[in-house]
Amino acid sequence: MLAREVEEEPGRLSVALPYPYLLFLGDTVEPGYAKTAFGLRDWAPEKCIGEFALPVATVTTGLPKLPPWEAHSRGARALVIGVANAGGFIADSWLPALVQALEAGLDIISGMHSRLADLPTLRIAAERFGRRLIDIRVPPPNIPVATGLKRSGKRLLTVGTDCALGKKYTALSIARGFKQRGIDADFRATGQTGIMIAGGGIAMDAVVADFAAGAAEMLSPHAPDGHWDAIEGQGSLLHPAYAGVSLALLHGSQPDVIVVCHDPTRTRMLGDEEFAVPSIEEIIDLTLHLGSRTNPAIRVGGVSLNTSALADNDARQIIAAESARLRLPVADPLRGGAEFERMLDSCLA
Amino acid sequence: MLAREVEEEPGRLSVALPYPYLLFLGDTVEPGYAKTAFGLRDWAPEKCIGEFALPVATVTTGLPKLPPWEAHSRGARALVIGVANAGGFIADSWLPALVQALEAGLDIISGMHSRLADLPTLRIAAERFGRRLIDIRVPPPNIPVATGLKRSGKRLLTVGTDCALGKKYTALSIARGFKQRGIDADFRATGQTGIMIAGGGIAMDAVVADFAAGAAEMLSPHAPDGHWDAIEGQGSLLHPAYAGVSLALLHGSQPDVIVVCHDPTRTRMLGDEEFAVPSIEEIIDLTLHLGSRTNPAIRVGGVSLNTSALADNDARQIIAAESARLRLPVADPLRGGAEFERMLDSCLA
Repeated sequence: MLAREVEEEPGRLSVALPYPYLLFLGDTVEPGYAKTAFGLRDWAPEKCIGEFALPVATVTTGLPKLPPWEAHSRGARALVIGVANAGGFIADSWLPALVQALEAGLDIISGMHSRLADLPTLRIAAERFGRRLIDIRVPPPNIPVATGLKRSGKRLLTVGTDCALGKKYTALSIARGFKQRGIDADFRATGQTGIMIAGGGIAMDAVVADFAAGAAEMLSPHAPDGHWDAIEGQGSLLHPAYAGVSLALLHGSQPDVIVVCHDPTRTRMLGDEEFAVPSIEEIIDLTLHLGSRTNPAIRVGGVSLNTSALADNDARQIIAAESARLRLPVADPLRGGAEFERMLDSCLA
Repeated sequence: MLAREVEEEPGRLSVALPYPYLLFLGDTVEPGYAKTAFGLRDWAPEKCIGEFALPVATVTTGLPKLPPWEAHSRGARALVIGVANAGGFIADSWLPALVQALEAGLDIISGMHSRLADLPTLRIAAERFGRRLIDIRVPPPNIPVATGLKRSGKRLLTVGTDCALGKKYTALSIARGFKQRGIDADFRATGQTGIMIAGGGIAMDAVVADFAAGAAEMLSPHAPDGHWDAIEGQGSLLHPAYAGVSLALLHGSQPDVIVVCHDPTRTRMLGDEEFAVPSIEEIIDLTLHLGSRTNPAIRVGGVSLNTSALADNDARQIIAAESARLRLPVADPLRGGAEFERMLDSCLA
């Protein structure tokens, strides 16, 4: 059974994916490009049995390194492509490893732009070994043009100063934090990892540009007054390649609250070293200005700092300093604590 | 021969389309949706032999109303779908008229989102009558992710306070004006009408969102220092459905000069009456702010007012008043005159 059958199935994105997963890391040496693998490890650990990479890769999730046959014998049912290069292409150098996985009895799940079934090597191997090629980065059919009209329910959108610095983790953390307070909340996934974690969503960057805001409107539909959607942001309004996706998602999400995500240790844009990372204040100003078009009541709920590269003490200091400087709640959601609770208070205020 | 053969031909967008055209107006009662037909009439009159519409349509190009058989006997070779509804769908009510055109010996050219060949009625009729279904809104294959890096040559982008108010006409007028001054210039088309007029280009709104800025980079490649590209803008940075397309086009075009297009008689967004048309100043500020990301030297060359609904004297007055108020060259390029020459001076300054 090839991907086409999966793609044409209505409600495909809600289909249960085969697991446990073996996480494939390709030839990746840049941790920022392995966010799918890290996201699955952190937010769906019960589904992840190990990792598998080419010898040149230096990135690791810390999970057991298992060749496909061994992963399969330990129960794995699918290899997940856990890396996302710029452009989302499957490298030729990955093909022998992917064929090995099919031969070992694993299906392949991909969130990349290029379709697994479009690669003859994989299509032939999947047919030969009776395995499935599952592309989750296929938007639902018949996405409408956005209307811009107000929907019921509350929405929070994470936005960022760059790609790959915590917008998904922050939205997941906030949805979990809201639920822990007894609030009816959903995490809304807009990228491949989020969809794998949540079991549904829309890969925003794969939608045809004219319908991108319409896809965002579909993603967070009308809801009861007390309900919150915590929507995973994409890209950055000042990213030279992906800003259009960010703006369409902002307009279609019509957020009541934004949370700005930033990595204080990053000074240059990931994969675009020519460009400086913009300031948090510039992203706040731009987002409130542009976002007020579809929700005049838009406000900032706080700033999410990715302090994963810092020691505890340094992280605490920078969180406190940024909060004082910006006069906003600032927290690292993955560290939690009183700062994060204050950010949740502010979002709900 | 069906559309697929045309689509798969490399360099397809440069292929000579069959003409003269018969312009199809469907059931359109809103002139703003017939911009393809008007654009072809105004900028490729030698290719247009007449128009054809359903009885309920009220929009007309002023060209002779010809049934398909008569258009064919007068030399027409293709029916061009000259209307673009929101979403770009082909209405079921149009199908009998389109089949009639195929039966009369005309090919069909479409710039809509939905593919002609995906409609069984048309596919079967085209096969039966030996005619072609040509979809020009198909982006070229292998568009890269944008790099944001500076390219040689000069670029001008038309931007707008809304859709369908003169961005294409303005870019065409400026390219023609530059050429009349002996400057090496090209009009770069980003929409279906522009592509039909220019014989090439990329339908920006049909590109997958992640690659939209990359498509804009392809559209205006490196050029000699003295060369100008006059790039057709799309949508508006404050349009609730299409702003993402506008921002991707802005970042990828990295314009040296923008010209803001506005219709002084329009107060509500076309097709989105809930939304007011933003001010010219707000669009200038936003465009310079966001555009400076990929071209820090971006500046505004002037304002293009669409005064087609105004009497000559009223048009002159509003052009003078807006120029004084904004302290910028303001002109209606279709009226030309000294104001338009001053705008060209300002763009080239």
